[in-house]
Amino acid sequence: MSVVEILDEILHPKSVAVVGASGSERSWGYSYTTHLLEYGFRGKLYPVNPRYPEILGLKAYPSLLDIPGTVDYVISCVPSNLVLGMLEECGQKQVKAVHLYTARFSETGRKDAADLEQEVLKRARKYNIRLIGPNCMGVYHPGHGMSFGYNLPKEAGTIGMLSQTGGGAALFVRLAGKRGLRFSKVISYGNALDFSEADYLEYFTEDTETTVITVYVEGVRDGHSFFPALRRAARKKPVIVIKGGRGEAGTRAVASHTASLAGSLKTWEAMVTQAGAVSAANFDEMVDLATSFHNLPPIRGAGAGIVGGGGGPSVLAADECEEEGLVVVPLPDEIRKELRDGGIEIWDWVSNPVDVSIIGGFGFTDLDMMRLMGSNENYHILIGRLNENVMFTLSRGDAADMRLKSTIEGYRQLKEEIGKPLLVVVSEDGSGSDQYGDLSGKVVSQARTDLIKAGIPFYPSMGRAARAARKVLDYYLRKDLENGP
Amino acid sequence: MSVVEILDEILHPKSVAVVGASGSERSWGYSYTTHLLEYGFRGKLYPVNPRYPEILGLKAYPSLLDIPGTVDYVISCVPSNLVLGMLEECGQKQVKAVHLYTARFSETGRKDAADLEQEVLKRARKYNIRLIGPNCMGVYHPGHGMSFGYNLPKEAGTIGMLSQTGGGAALFVRLAGKRGLRFSKVISYGNALDFSEADYLEYFTEDTETTVITVYVEGVRDGHSFFPALRRAARKKPVIVIKGGRGEAGTRAVASHTASLAGSLKTWEAMVTQAGAVSAANFDEMVDLATSFHNLPPIRGAGAGIVGGGGGPSVLAADECEEEGLVVVPLPDEIRKELRDGGIEIWDWVSNPVDVSIIGGFGFTDLDMMRLMGSNENYHILIGRLNENVMFTLSRGDAADMRLKSTIEGYRQLKEEIGKPLLVVVSEDGSGSDQYGDLSGKVVSQARTDLIKAGIPFYPSMGRAARAARKVLDYYLRKDLENGP
Repeated sequence: MSVVEILDEILHPKSVAVVGASGSERSWGYSYTTHLLEYGFRGKLYPVNPRYPEILGLKAYPSLLDIPGTVDYVISCVPSNLVLGMLEECGQKQVKAVHLYTARFSETGRKDAADLEQEVLKRARKYNIRLIGPNCMGVYHPGHGMSFGYNLPKEAGTIGMLSQTGGGAALFVRLAGKRGLRFSKVISYGNALDFSEADYLEYFTEDTETTVITVYVEGVRDGHSFFPALRRAARKKPVIVIKGGRGEAGTRAVASHTASLAGSLKTWEAMVTQAGAVSAANFDEMVDLATSFHNLPPIRGAGAGIVGGGGGPSVLAADECEEEGLVVVPLPDEIRKELRDGGIEIWDWVSNPVDVSIIGGFGFTDLDMMRLMGSNENYHILIGRLNENVMFTLSRGDAADMRLKSTIEGYRQLKEEIGKPLLVVVSEDGSGSDQYGDLSGKVVSQARTDLIKAGIPFYPSMGRAARAARKVLDYYLRKDLENGP
Repeated sequence: MSVVEILDEILHPKSVAVVGASGSERSWGYSYTTHLLEYGFRGKLYPVNPRYPEILGLKAYPSLLDIPGTVDYVISCVPSNLVLGMLEECGQKQVKAVHLYTARFSETGRKDAADLEQEVLKRARKYNIRLIGPNCMGVYHPGHGMSFGYNLPKEAGTIGMLSQTGGGAALFVRLAGKRGLRFSKVISYGNALDFSEADYLEYFTEDTETTVITVYVEGVRDGHSFFPALRRAARKKPVIVIKGGRGEAGTRAVASHTASLAGSLKTWEAMVTQAGAVSAANFDEMVDLATSFHNLPPIRGAGAGIVGGGGGPSVLAADECEEEGLVVVPLPDEIRKELRDGGIEIWDWVSNPVDVSIIGGFGFTDLDMMRLMGSNENYHILIGRLNENVMFTLSRGDAADMRLKSTIEGYRQLKEEIGKPLLVVVSEDGSGSDQYGDLSGKVVSQARTDLIKAGIPFYPSMGRAARAARKVLDYYLRKDLENGP
């Protein structure tokens, strides 16, 4: 069996035992059992703990050996000193894979713990048991009813993730979820004791349920296998990579987190770029990139048409787009001519970015301008802005709500009509405290929901939208170069 | 009278007339009248419009000349071709100041409109009328019942703003409002036809209600007066400056927005730094800086202690702090000794940033670690993280809520006890769409409210917190340098 087949089998267990399951709400054994129940795992589920006859309404078993049927997959929540004994029982039960949530191995920086980790690997190899972890959150696979967190989406999607960090993976799933993204599988693998990063990468490369791969790594066990795997992956689908431990302090932090070797940042960046993958600095940027790849057609040029918002924010929008590597193309003669022929009195005044505060009362709208730009070959990217005084300063809540609704419906139609990448900026205005009326908050939240339904990606700031667009463009430029003319 | 006294009088009118007031909800004449009513303006209020006998329950006057009493301040919402005639009436009524919301002057790029603007200035000078604008939103002065937008805070505060853009100013007030900031006065001045930027700056420098000055400019009419005024201001209080029109596209956009001359960015940046002011790239960063200056004691060193969050996010936190110019100081021997002496088993493993996922069960908490760092001279800045799996992955809503509450109460006590700058990172996780359960959203919103009450500034990402901290540090370093040893 290939590593891809092995991992696919591991990710689809028919029976799961949670060793160290517990009735105490504050324990991870309780959490993992709850997740399997709440996310709809349809196989056999066996809590294991000698101190409980029953956990969460399920019969609990004193040990793995007491379970009547077969066990495909074990989630280990016991302390590290009990792992070797547990693996003996796994061997007898012919368990295929163990997810070691259990931590305190090599990442502690202590020799005895590191030695124990190596013993664990040996013991697993002896019984042909594959390991995920140790020191990790394991698998979030909503399509198969597996989760490692409360408050993550229950529906499946097409974003895949391999992540050395579990906390970061959960954070990313939540942030991405709020932007409408859903996941095929997320594997938090911690110390990567058994499978390597390249193995996981290969899995997602071949996985037909995954269209975009996201990666968080601090250091890779084996660069010689990782970078070729990254290249193969990036040829097949977009791959977004965060490197944790870029500086001195981060490298120190890596040591106590997953004990991996961070290596030189420059070499790393060069290798990632050469492989055709896309670097992200943090999980916020990774969400921006993932929603861009997921929702947009390929970006084929840097020419941006920006529409919406008042004068000052339009000026800053131009600055930030340019600073992030987009070209804010001045309105070409043919568009000015079209405006003039259409009797638009301010044909010579309006410019790109389109300051919507000046176009009112002249018989054309922001969407008309966007349509003109979208139909013009100089514009490869359209960016709409929703977070402006035009909505919340001039209008009260209901009116702003109505205007947002009709603008988004306009975007949706335009997107289908024009077929060019359309990005929308909605500021975080709506979040925040309850210190004063949350009218705009509600409206913005509704706007985001409508944008998700329309399949239009949105970003909390112009700078972040522009940066994502530029990186997506670079991805396709490299891809085209590789494919040749 | 000095320009400061003149402006102070203008900002405290006893009577206001809205010329071009209207009963139509979608008009600015309606909005401005509504604002004066809703924000509690306590002087005389006169809507002027020959077509209405009454507007919003107030008697309306056909012209300024029909108003029985004196008029201190006029808000002009009439089209530009009516302004000269209106100024004649203002002259007869001995109006002191006119805010020209009216636009379509030099910013259109048309000669006749620019000529008209100069005529307007001449006419105003003739009658000794001072002008705010044209092409601007005018004054938001909640303490005096004046506003230029719905949905802005009604309470007054101590942040001041002068802004060439009105839309941006309203956006900034809303964004800052959600972070707990309130304003003394905001002046959106558009084309700066009469008062110069230096005049406004001087006003805020002397204004005792203002503790932090924020500035948005695209170009200044007179650099020779602006930069000395900026220096005087920055010596007295922190001044944060956004420059709009930094690149080619932005400069083009400036032309059609306020027609000011953008000038060289490099020279600009150097002058701002020399003046001792702090540059911000956009309104998001300006909010970060304003809340930092408002809430924090002076920052006197770059050593940062970071506490909270799991392993991966801690690694990235270290990276981002370092990338923004902070020093992530390793735990010094004396702290390790204190931990060991206290019987903390992982005294040699825990590090800075403090990964809270590893300290559970060892008899000390994240707040204990923060207290140790806060009491140590190597740490000048403390940064707490709230947005982690530790809250939302392990715990369900209520439990997460409780933990957030007690953590924030701990921060509050620590802040008072230690007296060092304490910044908290709360991600935007809570905002977003209603696509799935908004439990974390509610909890995060509550956390922000509690942080505001505790006077602790918060930031949506580690990178933004670190960048703000570094700039605040630089401001005080320069100030100390100027003041000498």
